[in-house]
Amino acid sequence: MAKVGVILSGCGVFDGSEIYETVITLLALDRAGAEVVCMAPDVPQMHVINHLTGEPEQGQSRNVLVESARIARGKIRAISELSIDDFDALILPGGFGAAKNLCDFAVKGPQCEVEPDVARLLRQCWAAKKPLAAICIAPAILARVLGEDGHCPSLTIGTDADTAAALSSMGARHQSCSVRDFVVDRENKLITTPAYMLAGSISEAAEGIEKTVQTLMEMI
Amino acid sequence: MAKVGVILSGCGVFDGSEIYETVITLLALDRAGAEVVCMAPDVPQMHVINHLTGEPEQGQSRNVLVESARIARGKIRAISELSIDDFDALILPGGFGAAKNLCDFAVKGPQCEVEPDVARLLRQCWAAKKPLAAICIAPAILARVLGEDGHCPSLTIGTDADTAAALSSMGARHQSCSVRDFVVDRENKLITTPAYMLAGSISEAAEGIEKTVQTLMEMI
Repeated sequence: MAKVGVILSGCGVFDGSEIYETVITLLALDRAGAEVVCMAPDVPQMHVINHLTGEPEQGQSRNVLVESARIARGKIRAISELSIDDFDALILPGGFGAAKNLCDFAVKGPQCEVEPDVARLLRQCWAAKKPLAAICIAPAILARVLGEDGHCPSLTIGTDADTAAALSSMGARHQSCSVRDFVVDRENKLITTPAYMLAGSISEAAEGIEKTVQTLMEMI
Repeated sequence: MAKVGVILSGCGVFDGSEIYETVITLLALDRAGAEVVCMAPDVPQMHVINHLTGEPEQGQSRNVLVESARIARGKIRAISELSIDDFDALILPGGFGAAKNLCDFAVKGPQCEVEPDVARLLRQCWAAKKPLAAICIAPAILARVLGEDGHCPSLTIGTDADTAAALSSMGARHQSCSVRDFVVDRENKLITTPAYMLAGSISEAAEGIEKTVQTLMEMI
């Protein structure tokens, strides 16, 4: 049974993991027969967004691991405890949390820093030649880590020109991609799909994610 | 285009809506071509559970509508603003939130009270002869409201004897049901499925929920 690690970044599109992308990923992995381990860094969120108003909540603080546990029904591990030896593949759902809590791309753009345990696990994954998928804005993390290492990853965040330029400036090769499709970098074993960078509906996002998970499983 | 209202109770299995059940419901409705409106009561949660430890967070307070907005990507309405004229059908995902925030069944069992706007909308739905589905523990709310009104609803929460007895004592007829299946009450236009009352995996829950949504759409 293939073992796939899912890296979460909180619970909710504006300050954590995008919930639809995450659940569609988990369902597709389970239907493909994978054993799934959810994980997240045990660090404070950048901030808390009120998802009704879209505004930051002043004076509130939430923890990325604790909030990610909501999506995982409590079955989650701290990423610091895990290494790539525990997995056959990794996948990162999107949501602003990927760009706020797993790295600070949402604030610093191409000068972003990646959370150390996330960067460590992604580097281990590449070195072990195990496949790695990223959804929505999460490819920005791959661009930063693998771009910095000179691997020139090919990937997509959809069609947004500014974000694509930011990824290119970190050393990635950006390919435009529609929401129902995905991009594969066979050399670096990467699969990426735009999902809610472009999706107008949950079923549009699901189509690209389901294809991404299927391809990830085939590459294990 | 059929318009379906989805009644949420927060965000996270232990103090709100069960996230997998909710997302699977929303995806199945979207794939079936329904227009979906998420709603929740604008009230405080009964409490906040740390989903990593399973323990209540002392001194924390969260709002059901605000946290439900996380699942709905901000597109959500206060249930107080809505009537059954806005919908062709209703569906209630499960999670402890259904039994803690939409009613207090988790505390009071068969003596529970239902949040007034939830009770109003369910009564309107029954009177308008529009179909109504409930997942996991949410059928307890139907048992309370429709049982009190003497409609003797047939429904399921799976196989748990104590919970089934509680539903019967509120005036419902409980039918045992496996996780991949569902129960239909054609007279009262109700569809119920056990989901995480029984599910050992997300794909097991998905099978029962997808069948439930399909049947709901057929009954519109």
